[in-house]
Amino acid sequence: MKEKDFISIIKQTLNTEYIGDDCAYLKDLGIVVTQDSLVENIHFSLDYFTPYTLGYKSIAVNLSDIAASGAEAKYLTVSLSLPDRIENDFIKEFYKGCKAACQNSAEIVGGDITGSDKIFISVCAIGSTNGRNISSRKNAREGYKIVVSGEHGSSDTGLKLLQDKQNKPQEIINKHLMPQVQIDFGKTIGENVKEPYAMMDTSDGLMDAICAIANESKVQAEIDFDKIPHNPLIEQFDNWQQSVLFGGEDYGLIAAIPEKYSYGTHIGTIKSGSGINLKMNGEILHLSSKDVETRIFNHFS
Amino acid sequence: MKEKDFISIIKQTLNTEYIGDDCAYLKDLGIVVTQDSLVENIHFSLDYFTPYTLGYKSIAVNLSDIAASGAEAKYLTVSLSLPDRIENDFIKEFYKGCKAACQNSAEIVGGDITGSDKIFISVCAIGSTNGRNISSRKNAREGYKIVVSGEHGSSDTGLKLLQDKQNKPQEIINKHLMPQVQIDFGKTIGENVKEPYAMMDTSDGLMDAICAIANESKVQAEIDFDKIPHNPLIEQFDNWQQSVLFGGEDYGLIAAIPEKYSYGTHIGTIKSGSGINLKMNGEILHLSSKDVETRIFNHFS
Repeated sequence: MKEKDFISIIKQTLNTEYIGDDCAYLKDLGIVVTQDSLVENIHFSLDYFTPYTLGYKSIAVNLSDIAASGAEAKYLTVSLSLPDRIENDFIKEFYKGCKAACQNSAEIVGGDITGSDKIFISVCAIGSTNGRNISSRKNAREGYKIVVSGEHGSSDTGLKLLQDKQNKPQEIINKHLMPQVQIDFGKTIGENVKEPYAMMDTSDGLMDAICAIANESKVQAEIDFDKIPHNPLIEQFDNWQQSVLFGGEDYGLIAAIPEKYSYGTHIGTIKSGSGINLKMNGEILHLSSKDVETRIFNHFS
Repeated sequence: MKEKDFISIIKQTLNTEYIGDDCAYLKDLGIVVTQDSLVENIHFSLDYFTPYTLGYKSIAVNLSDIAASGAEAKYLTVSLSLPDRIENDFIKEFYKGCKAACQNSAEIVGGDITGSDKIFISVCAIGSTNGRNISSRKNAREGYKIVVSGEHGSSDTGLKLLQDKQNKPQEIINKHLMPQVQIDFGKTIGENVKEPYAMMDTSDGLMDAICAIANESKVQAEIDFDKIPHNPLIEQFDNWQQSVLFGGEDYGLIAAIPEKYSYGTHIGTIKSGSGINLKMNGEILHLSSKDVETRIFNHFS
């Protein structure tokens, strides 16, 4: 897990209170900011992404981080590094996809273009706090309920189908190519929950997000597998339960909020302790961070 | 010039008022934002950049864009895509360099790390307008004076020396590795000039910046070569005048401001017309945008 080592070195070197949540909350400016990159043949392949879907997804993954903060996405910058082979049409389609992902709310306001051997896309998104309550993964408290928005397992299943050169079910494949960002859920939580709360997107998998919240909040998460929303179409594929739990890039939202609120699908509860207690197939499995880590999508793999 | 074609396609596709200046000015949030990327073997080589100087420069180029807007740099995010060969020490030194470039004013608050074949660095910087007057390259007016901050030609000369495996003059080489961002000059202009004004950094060369201001403001720039500040040490090298005019990465600032202000070194005047009239060696040469783009310097040699 080089990435986690690197992040701990960065935190030490910068000696900063920031870096931990997907968005940095800049209180004095009333904004949150996030930056995420997509690298050709690591995060995507042009074998199955069109320029349009690639543009769409590049924006969506960043809007998802803003939604997870509870803030309102406002502006994005897009930095592209492109090989010589890229033609004008690619750019046009890519930005059409970007624009579609913005859904007439957020706006692309800048960035840069440089050369490179492979396609690198780095997007920065800025959200306005706009009076909303901003999340932190440190904010889960004993007794909070764990709620989730969006279906899980579809993106991972879709990716496997694409890699196997399958083209259906299209509905599942599209969940990988053009994930639906849970903007409304993020807004509902940010606008209505008055107490401190934790929220994350499930970009690296549902279990990874729950585990991060449990670790950072120094609590335990109890989850009932049967309550996790998933598309029944994925049940026909091997290991679909793995995809639901550990598959990345569904870009759902998971939140730990006080019990009195009725938002999203209630899948579990925050308890004292550590790690995750997962109720599944009539058993209760305890998963430590390490257990979760060894199953999750790893950017370096 | 694929980059310029791409930018025009992007503007058309997004149909946006933004994209044009190096920073986007987000009036409702009271901030400016910019994003710039550095790609291994395109923008830098590890043959002569250490992890420390690379970190330093990655931050400096973005702080320079914020300075050019007249705003105050506040926060940065850093996205790194790194090959497997990168070790912990690289990360530590890189972020030490980043932190040094921040000069205890701006702060790094987030970003991400992913894998890749080559090193790809993308930095996003956010500045607060903080009551300052924000520049636009469209704002030069007839009769304005053209002023510059920082020496020109050193970075380009330093790069050539590095590429030739030379190690002195160290002073000139360091101008390429660790450019000094003109933060104080940007602050002075942003805080004191009350009228609309144009300011840019000279990341792509002094002539390129002046030409961009002249084009966007639909005016002509008259420049006196002898007044452009440069380090006398570069005069020992061939074509040093070309480096002063066209060499990139000095990260000086050039501004067109009303005549009454006495900031920076006065090198010319805004007139009616188009392109640049350059006074040099007792002659006056007219340079069109195209001449600047192709660096038509042979006329002088």
